Amino acid sequence: MKPFCFAGDRILESQLASLHPLDIGLIRGYAIFDFLRTVHSTPLFLEDYLNRFTQSAASARLPLAYDKAALRSIIEELIDKNHLENGGIRMVLSGGVSENFFSPAEGKLFIFCEPLKLPGPDKYAHGVKLASVDYVRPIAEIKTTNYTLPVLLSTEWQTQGVEDVLYYHEGIVSESSRSNVFMVKDSQISTPEKHILKGITRQKVMALAQKVTVRDIRMEEILQADEVFITSTTKRILPITSIDDAVIGNGKPGPVTGELMKAFEQFEAAAIL
Amino acid sequence: MKPFCFAGDRILESQLASLHPLDIGLIRGYAIFDFLRTVHSTPLFLEDYLNRFTQSAASARLPLAYDKAALRSIIEELIDKNHLENGGIRMVLSGGVSENFFSPAEGKLFIFCEPLKLPGPDKYAHGVKLASVDYVRPIAEIKTTNYTLPVLLSTEWQTQGVEDVLYYHEGIVSESSRSNVFMVKDSQISTPEKHILKGITRQKVMALAQKVTVRDIRMEEILQADEVFITSTTKRILPITSIDDAVIGNGKPGPVTGELMKAFEQFEAAAIL
Repeated sequence: MKPFCFAGDRILESQLASLHPLDIGLIRGYAIFDFLRTVHSTPLFLEDYLNRFTQSAASARLPLAYDKAALRSIIEELIDKNHLENGGIRMVLSGGVSENFFSPAEGKLFIFCEPLKLPGPDKYAHGVKLASVDYVRPIAEIKTTNYTLPVLLSTEWQTQGVEDVLYYHEGIVSESSRSNVFMVKDSQISTPEKHILKGITRQKVMALAQKVTVRDIRMEEILQADEVFITSTTKRILPITSIDDAVIGNGKPGPVTGELMKAFEQFEAAAIL
Repeated sequence: MKPFCFAGDRILESQLASLHPLDIGLIRGYAIFDFLRTVHSTPLFLEDYLNRFTQSAASARLPLAYDKAALRSIIEELIDKNHLENGGIRMVLSGGVSENFFSPAEGKLFIFCEPLKLPGPDKYAHGVKLASVDYVRPIAEIKTTNYTLPVLLSTEWQTQGVEDVLYYHEGIVSESSRSNVFMVKDSQISTPEKHILKGITRQKVMALAQKVTVRDIRMEEILQADEVFITSTTKRILPITSIDDAVIGNGKPGPVTGELMKAFEQFEAAAIL
């Protein structure tokens, strides 16, 4: 069966979707997006993602012709048409074809259903490695498609056994390329405050953990943490057991991370009931 | 007459060109490009632009199925078909449709002919204003389509009478969003060394001016300059007469800038003979 997507103003076969290449979504890398999962055909935390997507569009000065109710209904139709049990849903709003090839215009909306490859059980059991990179995402609080740097860096990750980057600047940690980061020290959980995208999974984990301090975290501090983990839609809670050449804690996923992983699974199961 | 472009592997009507929206050129803002002008139907400094475009593709790990001779021949055919006397030529290579929605894949090549609106005579006569922004472009040396930040900022420029940004970080000036920057103090010309795209026009101006010092330039220093100007393909040499609230020199385009503007016009005229 061929997959279906939403493109512009209608549902059509995904392979037939098209963007004009002079859209500033391509020529200026100017577009916003969001990405959520379905669990047993239910879009997980859909309201949160729709809130963020519509807010990203507004912050990026991009008109969005569909309100949250309309987006919800398109998404439900796509899940149904694609029989998407456990997959990903990607919403993208391009910057539009701009008269001066630069300024935001009227973009085109796309919604795709995708197969989803979650990290394997090995990664959850043993944790993964991050590589630190001196960088701050500009306008990190808007979910833009600006991934130029990590996409280029990713061409080296596999040979280096690296899962993703850890951004820091002027000694302060911000986030990974598509995940938020948390650290645990003496049972206290902390997560960075500035230059981050406020992840939906981050919010849920903060609610589940109850006591999370949101503050500036220095690089040398996170290297000395007992536990480190990252959160994202596609990774949920993934333990970090090394950063560059430094082993985190005893080099194994820690108990606080483990408890949160369990709690999150239960929370997720309850959310789709 | 409808304009023609090159898309993928053939010349077709520009309006029919299309990119698949799951290309990481859109969903990860990962693409490279270049832009040159035609003068009396001759592509100006074509060899320089082809060198840079093919180098950008290689640095971005994107395979390019066409070599410089093939690109040159496509460009010549497009100029001819579009009767492009004085316009712009945009080459874009997208990141491709990637299996993991992230890593560089096999991109699609586009070449468009565009009408070109150069800055009006007023701007050359009186100079324009830049607004400083604390930012460094990542991988600035590759001509990527990463313009997320300045596109968003540009929505405020018109009301503020601003032509473009001036990036600085940790006190050091780098470049404008699509131009290189030069300063003149006591008849000495300087231009930044780091975190810049090496503009073709910048190179030509350096050759014409003969003595240009390439070095770190501090923000407070450029504000005290006698003259400041920016260089780019579409602006050639454009005088900067204010940065934020600071007036540069006596607030008028200076004599060194004026001489270089004349010299560049002559050089350009000679280049297409």
